[in-house]
Amino acid sequence: MNSTIKDRVRKAKEASIALAAQSTDVKQKALAAMAEALDANRARIFAANSQDMQAAEEMVKRGEMTSALAKRLKVDDGKIDGMIAGIRDVMSLPDPVGRTLDALELDSGLMLYQVSCPIGLIGVIFESRPDVVPQILSLCLKSGNATVFKGGSEAQNSNRALFQVLVEAAGSITGIPPDAFQLMESRDDVNAILEFDEYIDLLIPRGSNSFVRFIQDHTRIPVLGHAAGICHVYVDEHADPAKASGLVLDSKIQYAAVCNAAETLLVHQKAAADLLPSLVRDLMDASVEVRVDEASAAILASKGVKGWKAASDEDWDTEYNDMIISVKVVEDVDEAIRHINRHGSGHTDSIITEDRGIAARFISLVDSSSVMVNASTRFSDGYRYGKGAEVGISTNKIHARGPVGMEGLMIYKYVLLGEGHVVKDYAGAGAKAFTHVRKDETFQI
Amino acid sequence: MNSTIKDRVRKAKEASIALAAQSTDVKQKALAAMAEALDANRARIFAANSQDMQAAEEMVKRGEMTSALAKRLKVDDGKIDGMIAGIRDVMSLPDPVGRTLDALELDSGLMLYQVSCPIGLIGVIFESRPDVVPQILSLCLKSGNATVFKGGSEAQNSNRALFQVLVEAAGSITGIPPDAFQLMESRDDVNAILEFDEYIDLLIPRGSNSFVRFIQDHTRIPVLGHAAGICHVYVDEHADPAKASGLVLDSKIQYAAVCNAAETLLVHQKAAADLLPSLVRDLMDASVEVRVDEASAAILASKGVKGWKAASDEDWDTEYNDMIISVKVVEDVDEAIRHINRHGSGHTDSIITEDRGIAARFISLVDSSSVMVNASTRFSDGYRYGKGAEVGISTNKIHARGPVGMEGLMIYKYVLLGEGHVVKDYAGAGAKAFTHVRKDETFQI
Repeated sequence: MNSTIKDRVRKAKEASIALAAQSTDVKQKALAAMAEALDANRARIFAANSQDMQAAEEMVKRGEMTSALAKRLKVDDGKIDGMIAGIRDVMSLPDPVGRTLDALELDSGLMLYQVSCPIGLIGVIFESRPDVVPQILSLCLKSGNATVFKGGSEAQNSNRALFQVLVEAAGSITGIPPDAFQLMESRDDVNAILEFDEYIDLLIPRGSNSFVRFIQDHTRIPVLGHAAGICHVYVDEHADPAKASGLVLDSKIQYAAVCNAAETLLVHQKAAADLLPSLVRDLMDASVEVRVDEASAAILASKGVKGWKAASDEDWDTEYNDMIISVKVVEDVDEAIRHINRHGSGHTDSIITEDRGIAARFISLVDSSSVMVNASTRFSDGYRYGKGAEVGISTNKIHARGPVGMEGLMIYKYVLLGEGHVVKDYAGAGAKAFTHVRKDETFQI
Repeated sequence: MNSTIKDRVRKAKEASIALAAQSTDVKQKALAAMAEALDANRARIFAANSQDMQAAEEMVKRGEMTSALAKRLKVDDGKIDGMIAGIRDVMSLPDPVGRTLDALELDSGLMLYQVSCPIGLIGVIFESRPDVVPQILSLCLKSGNATVFKGGSEAQNSNRALFQVLVEAAGSITGIPPDAFQLMESRDDVNAILEFDEYIDLLIPRGSNSFVRFIQDHTRIPVLGHAAGICHVYVDEHADPAKASGLVLDSKIQYAAVCNAAETLLVHQKAAADLLPSLVRDLMDASVEVRVDEASAAILASKGVKGWKAASDEDWDTEYNDMIISVKVVEDVDEAIRHINRHGSGHTDSIITEDRGIAARFISLVDSSSVMVNASTRFSDGYRYGKGAEVGISTNKIHARGPVGMEGLMIYKYVLLGEGHVVKDYAGAGAKAFTHVRKDETFQI
């Protein structure tokens, strides 16, 4: 069994070489074919999806699945339309392969180019949500990356139908090696994928925090993603009250279940008496459970605000993903920064202030992938950041950080064009010197 | 013990925040102070080094160390001069921190900037060679990265003296937190470092292949480096014989002990009869042991060339780091490409050809960090690639690939400047549209 999986992963790796060298034209044709095939195969996809939905409904009845989760499995015409629109979005992005990132003359007739290329073989492991199949498949194809997929078992039939429709369509275009795309289906396959660091260059997990954590803990392959989103809003002494009110609410309630929603509100001690009571009231009016530290509690009590709860130490390290927020009064921007760097997850943190110097300090010292001034944490997202399509949000400190678009699937190679140049001429007595002149030119041969 | 190490690593991480925010001016002053301190403390460094040399000579006598290794430990005036010159090279590089990589207007008054910043805390683990201390310390300081060092025990006294001289000098400049640089000395420290993925963002190992492999196999921290350099030279049917002769020799013998020296020579079947005998003779004349496949053997025998050995299957996967080369006749460029992708290490591979189409095919399908046309593999090196200073050579497929300069120590953060912008205005019915207009401007606040 394992050797069969290995064969398929190795085939994908081998096919990745040919896929990486494909022209923009071939890749665009394949993407167009994929979009058309989704449209033409709705019935086939719905039939497969209804099998998954039937099983899901049984599980909901038995209390083994939430109805919210079951709902997310559903593929209808609207979902298919969205998938097709997503593929067309990817078609409209420029081809990221073969861009000249740098051109340096080392010496007369000796030119060094740094040229963008695909990473190679991407492993994508995701929970439920069949929408991920066309989204990631189109991004990988456009960026020239081969892909090994593993989806959740709840969506197995839907994933398989979508995958087959898409890969058959792409493979019908001369130049696209169908082996470049492999669907894995069993639990054993996941464990195998995690061990294939010899073949797989990058893993992208999509799912719950514990799911991502599990992947990170069980593989030597680099993982692009984030296991937690503990985002903060800090209301400074010099905050504009109206902005503070709008931004705290939006950061918390615009969509509380996602990673870029705020989990903790920090308020400067000098702003707390004025702003905290109304901020907390607004949050509670919006059905948010508010958990406060002692200093906040004292202020709220003195102003007659009721209905909040006391925070425990655990709250500062908790991602609620829910209509709950923790609140703390801090001495100044430096305490806010220390709190964020200690308890945050390096995802997204926002300061509300009219003081440019304090904003600059917050920006420079908060060690997060997105740092915001007078803007909602909810903006940190690939679509809003103009990426066209989102591969994921990364809290890694290398390669790609924050909302990651297709650029996260790219690396580069160095190409050196010579005319018989040897290193011995540049070494020892009478060594020639390198010119090292940067050129504004594009690699071509 | 372990908690003390952890305390020091955590301190370095905390100090990394302040170091990351330091101005170019402060960092340049610290680098200048480091260079001056090396010059002023030669006697102190030589005294420490002579302790290591004494111990090394005892080990050489007992047969526990090669004399070549002992030689590399020696620090003399020339070495100190080289270290000082290296620090001045780093001073002459532009500050990589705070560069605006992208500026995108999301909407009126809502500007997104992608700004370069240090990775954070770099772990550097190296074998012997005290030269690494000033080199990496200056690169990390200039790039705003805190650093945890662990050197080889053979150079323990030299490393400690160098480290203390350099960090005392840097720490004398206001704004440089001395805690940002920590020297670890025991074997336990290495194991501890490998486990601190909570604090250390990137590991840079310097040493033998087995040493790098060990590090890669025992940590969850990303590792920048290469475990092997199996580089190829492919002599095509359309090779210029004079270039072939010069390039094969230079790639193999200019410095055989290093990772970018060629280990395998591939020759097109149609060029083999003409070129192989003289190429092999040249190599043998230069004292290279030549190990050939059957097809090469037949050609060499028919031309009366003697003195070579038969290659075994293992040879294709072996990095000799020595005056040995394996030789194979291939059917065409595609077989050469397949051989390289299968047996190579993704480091550096060169084609010798006058045919641009074949060169283009080789460049696009060889999956290596450096791909060369009519140039020696020995060129792939940070200094020759104009990096100013080399952090290492990477065969990773993410983050940084090939010779890596200071850019490998950098990442970015997104900075979003708003005026109270909330996401709810861009969602649902009557949603505002994003403008997503790229701007040619530099981040400032």
